[in-house]
Amino acid sequence: MLQGMRDDEELGRVTLAEVAQKAGVSISTVSKVLNGRQDVAAPTRVKVERLLERHSYRRTTRAAREAPLIELVFHELDSIWAMELIRGVENVAKAHQASVVLTESGTRHAPDPEWIEGVMQRRPRGVVLVFSALPAEVKARLRSRSIPFVIVDPAGGPEPDVPSVGSANWNGGLVATRHLLEMGHRRIGIITGPDDMLCSLARLDGYRSALSMAGIQADPELVRYGDFHVEGGFKRALELLDLPEPPTAVFAGSDLQALGVLEAARVRELRVPQDLSVVGYDDVPVAQWASPALTTVHQPLREMAEEAVQMLMRLSVQEPVTTRLELATSLVVRKSTAPPAL
Amino acid sequence: MLQGMRDDEELGRVTLAEVAQKAGVSISTVSKVLNGRQDVAAPTRVKVERLLERHSYRRTTRAAREAPLIELVFHELDSIWAMELIRGVENVAKAHQASVVLTESGTRHAPDPEWIEGVMQRRPRGVVLVFSALPAEVKARLRSRSIPFVIVDPAGGPEPDVPSVGSANWNGGLVATRHLLEMGHRRIGIITGPDDMLCSLARLDGYRSALSMAGIQADPELVRYGDFHVEGGFKRALELLDLPEPPTAVFAGSDLQALGVLEAARVRELRVPQDLSVVGYDDVPVAQWASPALTTVHQPLREMAEEAVQMLMRLSVQEPVTTRLELATSLVVRKSTAPPAL
Repeated sequence: MLQGMRDDEELGRVTLAEVAQKAGVSISTVSKVLNGRQDVAAPTRVKVERLLERHSYRRTTRAAREAPLIELVFHELDSIWAMELIRGVENVAKAHQASVVLTESGTRHAPDPEWIEGVMQRRPRGVVLVFSALPAEVKARLRSRSIPFVIVDPAGGPEPDVPSVGSANWNGGLVATRHLLEMGHRRIGIITGPDDMLCSLARLDGYRSALSMAGIQADPELVRYGDFHVEGGFKRALELLDLPEPPTAVFAGSDLQALGVLEAARVRELRVPQDLSVVGYDDVPVAQWASPALTTVHQPLREMAEEAVQMLMRLSVQEPVTTRLELATSLVVRKSTAPPAL
Repeated sequence: MLQGMRDDEELGRVTLAEVAQKAGVSISTVSKVLNGRQDVAAPTRVKVERLLERHSYRRTTRAAREAPLIELVFHELDSIWAMELIRGVENVAKAHQASVVLTESGTRHAPDPEWIEGVMQRRPRGVVLVFSALPAEVKARLRSRSIPFVIVDPAGGPEPDVPSVGSANWNGGLVATRHLLEMGHRRIGIITGPDDMLCSLARLDGYRSALSMAGIQADPELVRYGDFHVEGGFKRALELLDLPEPPTAVFAGSDLQALGVLEAARVRELRVPQDLSVVGYDDVPVAQWASPALTTVHQPLREMAEEAVQMLMRLSVQEPVTTRLELATSLVVRKSTAPPAL
């Protein structure tokens, strides 16, 4: 063990000297850059980091070996998905004796600038980002330290050069709609998510394909775009229920939107499932606590987070084989769906 | 800044030598103990740690100054409360430029033994534990490194020598019951939590006091003990609704139990609130997503977590003034309560 540590450090020192020579700076300057110190001029830091990146320099610090960290970054922690993802990351991190550092980045598009400085100092084994995009500069800095990163992206559409884990949204829309068709529904409404999110469009396309395969032409009146929250589901459901010819079933696009549909049904004095069938999406815990318990599409959030950490662990020892992994969704039938009233 | 760092280190080194001398070991052995290294015999480690504890040795490592960590420990992460508590800790940690390390301890009573080794190596600014009890040995080790710890304990009843943050459960039970009394209910059922949890008993006592102040004698038939989960609320609510003289309102003891009461009402074809009023407890996000949205007692989970971290930050510079803080609860009136039908 001690022998191994010494070897690692020797190896590190040789490469450190080479990098210093190529950069035309002192070894101590390279060391400062590696340690994330602030007292190095930016142009020098960039030059050293580029060399480190080019030469795939890897230095395992004693701290990193003894108490390895996995960084987990959310752009917002109040997502109902956050808990399942955290548990997935915890599960695999624990199996690797790693601890999880949790950060809320506060913006939808990229982590805070201070965050990357903290990462440089903490030297994690890897970084899992939920939904966040990564600016090119941040990617370059992580790569300069050989810190691998993976995006968990249930919404679909991450950049092609970033390894990511998602789920099969098109197929989810298909199985939800098929379930309603099999129960005998013909007039099926959909409230999908925002129209600028790929997952919304994929679920909608799955819905259309299921209808089309059943020989039913989709009625544009029955297609609505929500916000993936309860309020959007409630408003769009009222619109659907107030149509001259309302649907007998609604595929709600998310469990929160499905809760909004349940509330709209209550307000319009419709019983679920006798008067209206409702299918959610996600299978977050509230789905089974709803009255009635929601039939929904299970999105394997915990497994997605687990795969992301496994991918990190592989990335830290070798080049990636797959850079995009999509896990299967599945239908969970509970009490919110039934054949339509005659 | 650099000057300050050097001063700290000088200060540390002097005390280190003194500790080594008193323990009759080398400085390098004391240093190993401080760094959480495994290659020190247990009796030596214990001796050195006791001396460190007695002399309030405090060494600020460079890592701790540059990227300070707050440890947050849950015994289980699937609690519906976890997210709010995590957000509270994140908020205050961010304000102190600290990162949060999240651990799921996996047992109800104490963190895993490996966890404390990790903490010794990571050297956090402090530790926030949710619900967990701390074995005496773990407390001693944290104190030997001057790592402060605070327990967030919404259930009440932590050990007296551990600083903790809770909330006012008795008062919560009182305001929930008074709200129903003011609406005209006289036959009010309660489903409190498990009878071995102090918070269950405090909420029940608040309910009894509110009835008593209104001149109503509590009917033991109307008092039930649940499990704080949906299932328990559902089963106990069916018992109450099937009584020869059922209640017109139920104080459900937790929001999850209230969801179970809503489902029991649906199964018995009772409308909420027209036929049955329901009050929850906690005000977790699902409370407002229920159909109808739940009237509930707001438990300030996020604020409790924020207070816990603030307390940590104070503890890391001075002795505690208060070691038990209880935050106020408040009633949130939504749509699940109404005057009883005549």
